[in-house]
Amino acid sequence: PWSGWRLLYLPSLLDHLLGHDQARRLIHGIKVAIAIVLVSLLYMVDVIHDRLGDNLMWAIMTVVVMFELTSGGTLRKGVNRGFGTLCGGLLGMLVALWAHDIGGWGRTVLVSFLLFIICTAASYFRMIPNIKKGYDYGVMIFILTFSLVAVSGVRGDQIIKQANDRLSAILIGMAISVTTNMLIFPVWAGDELQASLESNFKSLASSIQGTVDDYFKPVDEKLEGQPLDTSKGCKSVIHSKASNESMALFAKWEPMNRRFGHCYPWDDYLVIANLLRNLAISILSLRDCRRYKNQGDSTDEIKKQCESMSDSIGSMLTKLGAHFHNRTKSVAADDVDNLESHKQKLFKLICHLDIDSGNEDDIEGAQIAQFLLVLINII
Amino acid sequence: PWSGWRLLYLPSLLDHLLGHDQARRLIHGIKVAIAIVLVSLLYMVDVIHDRLGDNLMWAIMTVVVMFELTSGGTLRKGVNRGFGTLCGGLLGMLVALWAHDIGGWGRTVLVSFLLFIICTAASYFRMIPNIKKGYDYGVMIFILTFSLVAVSGVRGDQIIKQANDRLSAILIGMAISVTTNMLIFPVWAGDELQASLESNFKSLASSIQGTVDDYFKPVDEKLEGQPLDTSKGCKSVIHSKASNESMALFAKWEPMNRRFGHCYPWDDYLVIANLLRNLAISILSLRDCRRYKNQGDSTDEIKKQCESMSDSIGSMLTKLGAHFHNRTKSVAADDVDNLESHKQKLFKLICHLDIDSGNEDDIEGAQIAQFLLVLINII
Repeated sequence: PWSGWRLLYLPSLLDHLLGHDQARRLIHGIKVAIAIVLVSLLYMVDVIHDRLGDNLMWAIMTVVVMFELTSGGTLRKGVNRGFGTLCGGLLGMLVALWAHDIGGWGRTVLVSFLLFIICTAASYFRMIPNIKKGYDYGVMIFILTFSLVAVSGVRGDQIIKQANDRLSAILIGMAISVTTNMLIFPVWAGDELQASLESNFKSLASSIQGTVDDYFKPVDEKLEGQPLDTSKGCKSVIHSKASNESMALFAKWEPMNRRFGHCYPWDDYLVIANLLRNLAISILSLRDCRRYKNQGDSTDEIKKQCESMSDSIGSMLTKLGAHFHNRTKSVAADDVDNLESHKQKLFKLICHLDIDSGNEDDIEGAQIAQFLLVLINII
Repeated sequence: PWSGWRLLYLPSLLDHLLGHDQARRLIHGIKVAIAIVLVSLLYMVDVIHDRLGDNLMWAIMTVVVMFELTSGGTLRKGVNRGFGTLCGGLLGMLVALWAHDIGGWGRTVLVSFLLFIICTAASYFRMIPNIKKGYDYGVMIFILTFSLVAVSGVRGDQIIKQANDRLSAILIGMAISVTTNMLIFPVWAGDELQASLESNFKSLASSIQGTVDDYFKPVDEKLEGQPLDTSKGCKSVIHSKASNESMALFAKWEPMNRRFGHCYPWDDYLVIANLLRNLAISILSLRDCRRYKNQGDSTDEIKKQCESMSDSIGSMLTKLGAHFHNRTKSVAADDVDNLESHKQKLFKLICHLDIDSGNEDDIEGAQIAQFLLVLINII
């Protein structure tokens, strides 16, 4: 017999039918639509409409503007919006009430003057890089609410009732979007960040192996366009900075994500992401060196050493990725010893340090990353 | 005697007094404030208020939301907003008019159903990466306008008059913000992009020279924390991708920027920016190689060659930057020959290709960049 619980499997069913990205977009679309329909039903219910009137439009606006893909993003925007509205509304009401006591042209002049001063200050404040990064939206809402309230207060008589109603409408909108976003198949920014770092680990592991394999191929095979693939992986890792940072920002707002919980050290994730980016740069540089290398001086011995080295770096990265995935204590000491001995051998073996200069760097990167992972997993 | 024209020197005066960034923020703030005050004066003028009523609030909202730092950004947002509002408004009106003919619960159900379908579709559409990159804002405005119009149409009687008034208010807001933004000390995205690439050229030139100088220092001097500086420059070049891309997107909307004019090949700028990023990666890799280099095998001859080479690359980059600044035809053929001969000498000189592998790559990068510059300057 069909039961409602089957709906819980909807995401995985859609994943299966449409592919991950499309299923995700579809579910997001449905969530947005549900929130909008809920809020417009409120508008159509007479009791609430009689109480709040056309101010309910603010609830609809809040839902549309606030609804982000991840829960953390939505919460963050909600809090930004809430604070911006409150501060802007209060300040605007003060101005409006003050202006109310003055008649005629004086009122217009006073309001314009205050608008000018406060909007200049707030826009200036908004453009400061750190503020822009974290609170851009909040300050914008502040400017918006302040000017709307101050200006409409000049004509309106029921300033306080208006502000009150509008605030209730915005709160209703916020409540609806937060609950819809977090109760119906939530997408956690923390999970996204985790997945992005895992895939970075993987793509770097395969790039290292690919690059070193490539390096020892005969020249004629090299000319085929293959190496582009490995470099693409590295470049996408290098350019993942902005998205990782915003995900980490959002993830901090998700204490209710069972997988990670409160006070999870997201900043350390950024440190790891940064190390991975440095590693990606080193790998790319290894590729560059390779392009200009004449093959003559790589003896079989070096080749063997390098290949086993790249394999162990690769498997190490894969392992790190897996441990990262399970958030268990980090790689066993054996692996580190293993890498260490490879490194020693290579050191002894060669003095032309073309290849190993790159590789060593990779090892160092991996070791630092590992060290950090150990740190994190202890926490 | 004091004349109004002196105001034109205000930006350079402020630049002088406050420093470039702060002066810019202050001017931006003042521009925003002027636009907001203008639009609220409209609200306070009786003739216009009698005609449009509280719909004028939409004009204020439009100004606050649309006003971006650069003219291109503002225009782009304006066009996005215009299209989104038009499409959303029309579709919403259709739904509202249709629902008007049906009474009772049927109306609520019909509107909710249509809202659900259309919002799902639009939100899905909005999350597609290419759409999100270019038209995120427009689609959001579409959803917003559509649901507001459709929902309020259920109760309102004067659907068409309402929509009409609101549209006029939005158009007024758009006109005010575009004119204020573009007439009062405009900031052009094209200029920003140009300046950013120029500074990238400069910082890479100094990084190359710094890195090679560093390379040949005795080991004990190396241990001081200096090299960090050169790598910082490179890293900021590498991470300038996102901002360069959005600037190029905005710059396309600025046909009235006298300095560049219509149909300027901004995409080629992105290509150059990309080459510079690759060059930055190569320079970083050169630094990495250096870290693991034992000093023994760099003879004086190599050192001399490398240093003269890095100098000529550096001066070449600086020259390229200057030519880029003046947008004149590119570097003289002498310089290319010069570099070419350096390269040949180095080739002959050494078979350990640690250093020059990195350097050659830089040359190649510079040559490609130069080639592109030639191309651009011909256009």
